[in-house]
This record gives sequence, structure tokens and C-alpha cells, in this order.
Amino acid sequence: MAISVVGHSNPDTDSVTASIALAALLNAQGQEAQACMQCAAADLNPESKVVLEKFGLEAPVEISDAAGKDIALVDFSDLAQGPANLADANVVAVVDHHKVGDLTTNNPILFRAEPVGCTGTVLNKMFKEAGVSIPKNVAGGMLAAILSDTVNFKSPTCTEDDKIAVNDLKTVAGVDDTDALFMDMLKAKSSVDGVPAKDLLFRDYKDFDMKGNKVGVGQLELATLDQVADIRADLIKAMEEVKADGRHSVLLMLTDVVKEGTDLVVISDDPALIENAFGGKLESNSMWIDGMMSRKKQTVPNLQKAFGC
Amino acid sequence: MAISVVGHSNPDTDSVTASIALAALLNAQGQEAQACMQCAAADLNPESKVVLEKFGLEAPVEISDAAGKDIALVDFSDLAQGPANLADANVVAVVDHHKVGDLTTNNPILFRAEPVGCTGTVLNKMFKEAGVSIPKNVAGGMLAAILSDTVNFKSPTCTEDDKIAVNDLKTVAGVDDTDALFMDMLKAKSSVDGVPAKDLLFRDYKDFDMKGNKVGVGQLELATLDQVADIRADLIKAMEEVKADGRHSVLLMLTDVVKEGTDLVVISDDPALIENAFGGKLESNSMWIDGMMSRKKQTVPNLQKAFGC
Repeated sequence: MAISVVGHSNPDTDSVTASIALAALLNAQGQEAQACMQCAAADLNPESKVVLEKFGLEAPVEISDAAGKDIALVDFSDLAQGPANLADANVVAVVDHHKVGDLTTNNPILFRAEPVGCTGTVLNKMFKEAGVSIPKNVAGGMLAAILSDTVNFKSPTCTEDDKIAVNDLKTVAGVDDTDALFMDMLKAKSSVDGVPAKDLLFRDYKDFDMKGNKVGVGQLELATLDQVADIRADLIKAMEEVKADGRHSVLLMLTDVVKEGTDLVVISDDPALIENAFGGKLESNSMWIDGMMSRKKQTVPNLQKAFGC
Repeated sequence: MAISVVGHSNPDTDSVTASIALAALLNAQGQEAQACMQCAAADLNPESKVVLEKFGLEAPVEISDAAGKDIALVDFSDLAQGPANLADANVVAVVDHHKVGDLTTNNPILFRAEPVGCTGTVLNKMFKEAGVSIPKNVAGGMLAAILSDTVNFKSPTCTEDDKIAVNDLKTVAGVDDTDALFMDMLKAKSSVDGVPAKDLLFRDYKDFDMKGNKVGVGQLELATLDQVADIRADLIKAMEEVKADGRHSVLLMLTDVVKEGTDLVVISDDPALIENAFGGKLESNSMWIDGMMSRKKQTVPNLQKAFGC
């Protein structure tokens, strides 16, 4: 049985390209493996679509149920972020750069997570250590993922290792101007024209369990907050609907990539708790948090502390 | 605050030497770190004592409470196998070769587990990848751990990577005859003369949660089963006492390293379930399982399947 390599739900560019890259590495090492993702190709986010097209990469195959399958996880290790019945799958490998999630296994497996900006950075090391050369188009996808996850090196999650990986990968992929690549992705990613508010909320969205409370956190990276000025009321309405479906809070990070901060929109049973988490004051459901760029490294740890996780 | 590097409770040679090795690697990389263990030096198992003495290694420092400390785990990732209050510690790294345990973190960390025979094998790779040379005595400890964990390459957990690591490490440690080193360790490890039965049971013992049932599994590696013939009744009495302390089952693997099989002694609320787990038939509380050498790779997975984990 081929190993299904899959990233988290609501896949971002790292999840998509990491599944392609790990499947390629496993194939090169003589293991049958197929890149998968938890959505249809048509439902990929605009940035990922641009990246796949630019480097001539095929979209991973959709997978919705993991039961009984051999699965490798990339870019997550929380069961809730996987396909249905992941707990009944045979997880054979994990490659990640997030906090350690609640996955457990019955057997020893490869679990390779590092506190770096992107799964692509970890995978680049794994290719090097295995002495396997990265196909040119796969390297392009990994390069794009690192630029995206590190917000072109500006995110506090960015490390020296990420910069080294970008240097390796741009050569293999034949990309001279990584700034231009990043701006092409940002342009695609931050486009909101004609997109329904709920689709924007879910563009890069994750649910977390905070001491028994379900908390959803979405993020929109924007070139400027002006892009969402006209649809703010629609976004709040979408958040209220999502919150009504059994959630304690729904947060939407409107991240201004140029100003390097986030307008944090909050719909919550306990707004004071969220204010305390970030030392801010909500006005009309939102507060500006200077320097907040990373959901993983800034938003979620502060929430976990506030919820007493 | 220095990072406390600690292996699992009832430390074996891998846990002890891996804590020394990872602390050395972290130190070489400019991080303050101290090798720790969950027992006093006097309570180390006889094999580990021989290894530390042979290579002139200092015993790790005892740690009993992890609360508020920066902790690196070696050779385990199950909270139950850590020091008290591990859930309230700041776990900064994991290096392991076991199944993925129930540790979770609030932040991204280094989590490096591989399905190889020994943590020492993973650490040898990490030293190589980091370009840090291993101190001679530390290499000796890692070498001994691999020989011990793989039962001199005979265990089904042994991989090509373990053999490569042994080849690397014997050169650094200046050990010519690894068979002789293994026999010295086996002699120390399998000595039961004058040791109370309960101490033997706990020599290499772990508790596991099996669907809410506490199941203890000890292992004694022996050169021959004759070594324990005279104390079998005492061992069963010790197992009954440990079982009475809230456990569903207590198993003791009497592993004949030369015959490559295990006399599995079982005290259980449900002996039939344990028989089914291994396809055997208990007679006078025990059954011979040919080929059973590894608690981690054979005994525990079969138990988990039988308990429906």
C-alpha cells in the first residue's frame, strides 16, 4: 500500500508542497508514496494555485478518510487537523515545524520536527542528509513555501536554517529573485476581490482545543488593511456564524505584512480573556497588535496561556 | 537556566548515556545543559554502572521534579515515564526511538525520533549533521547503549543505521572488540545473585496505560533461564504485590538472549486476553514465546492490539 503523505486541513502552500516533497523523497528511497491533501484542487488557496502553476507541479490528490491507510503527516501533528479517522490510520512518519500535537502511535516511527519557519526547511535537510537531489520543480515549491511561511524572512518564526534552505533551493529551482516570487504570492494570497467573507475566514483557518473550549483562529495576510475595509461587517457576520457552531471564540488575524502587525478581530464568549491574552483593548470587535505576524508562535501560545492550557 | 536532559524512569543504559550525549551536544552548540536521570547513581542498573565505569563517565545528576524547568527528553516521549510534574515543565527537545507518546507542547521544538534500535544511533547522526565531534568517553557510552538496546544486533529493532553508528562510534571510543564489550555488559546485566526479587522486577520495568488499564511490563535479559530457576516463586510473589497496587496486569519478560526467546510470566485480571495477545497458552503463570526479544517492538504493540488501543 502506498503511503499517503498529507498536510493539515485547509492546506497552505507549505502543507501542499511538503506533501509533494516528502512523497518525492520517499519514492527516491524506494518507498511507494503519494502526495495528498484535504481539499480538491479547485479549493486550494490562491497562493498555492499560483505556486503549483509557476513551477509546473501537479496538485496532490484529495484524501478525506484516513482509516486503515498508511499515512505520513507533514506540517502538523494534531489529530484534529488531519483527515477523518486519522486515529484509525497507521501513521508511519511525521515531518513538521509546529508545536508537538496529540498524535500518538503504537510503533516507533520517524518523527522529525524542528523549531524553524517552515516544513520545507526540515525537508531540505532531510534530502541533503539522505543524499537525494531535489527535483527542480519540487525545489521551487519548497522555496515558495519557506518564503510564504516566513513572510519573506520577516516573521519571528524565521531562523538561520530557513535562510540557508532558501539559498540551497533557489539554486536548484533556478529562481534568481525571491523577493519577486514572494510579491507574486502575496498578490495572489491577499486578493479578496469577489471572494465571499466565509471563504476568506477559512482561507487559512484552524480550530484549537483550549482546555475543552473550541477556539478558531483564521489569518489573512494583506498588503494593506484597506483591502478589507469594505467587507469588515461581512467578515464579522461570518465569524459570528462560525462561532455559533459550538465555539468559545473565533479570531481573525488581519495581518498587514508591510506594517508588520495584526488587526485582531475577536468574536468571543469572553472578550476580556482574549484582551488579557494580548494585552490589548477591543474596540468594535478588534484591536491592533503591533508586531503580531505568526499565529503559531504568537497568537496560539498567548491564547493557551490565557486559557490555562 | 540550564536545560535538564533526562531519560525515562528506571533508566537503562540508553537513557543514561543519551542524556550525557545530548547534554554534550547542546553544550558544544553553546547551550547550557546538564545530564540528569530519575534515580540516584547507586540505584543505576548493574549494566549501566559497568558502562559508566568502563568509559570513565560521570553519572547524570538525579532529578525528581520537572516543574518549571527547561527539560529535554531522551529515549521517551510519554509523560508517565518522566519526572513528576513533567506536564508543568518547558520541554525544549525530544530525541527518541520509541513510539510517539502523549507529550504535547505549546511551542515548536526539536522532536527527533527514528525507528532505529537505540537513541544513541539518532544522537550519532545529530552530532554528524551538526559537525560536532563526539568526546571519546561519550562515544563509548553511546556505543554500549546501541549494543545493549539491539542485544548485540540480534533484536528485531536493530537496523542498518544502528550498525553504521556502531562502526562510527567504536573508532571514536577506541573499542576494538564490541562482542567482548557486549558480553561484559550482559554478564553485569543478567546477574541476579543476591538481588531481591522486586528489584529484579523493576530492573527494566515500565507502566503503560492500555485503554484505562494500568499494565506493567518488566524485562530481564538472561544468558540462560537457569539463572532465575531458583527464584521464580519469589518473582511471582513480587509481581503479585505490584499488581495489587492498582494494575490490571503485570508481565515479566525473562528473555534468553542466547536462545532468542522469552519466557513470559503473567499475573493478570484477564489471563486469556494476554494469551490471545501472544497466541500462547499459560502454564503455571508463564509461556515461552519464541523470537520475542523486544518489549517495545513486540510485547507492547501486541498488548495494545489486544486491549483495543
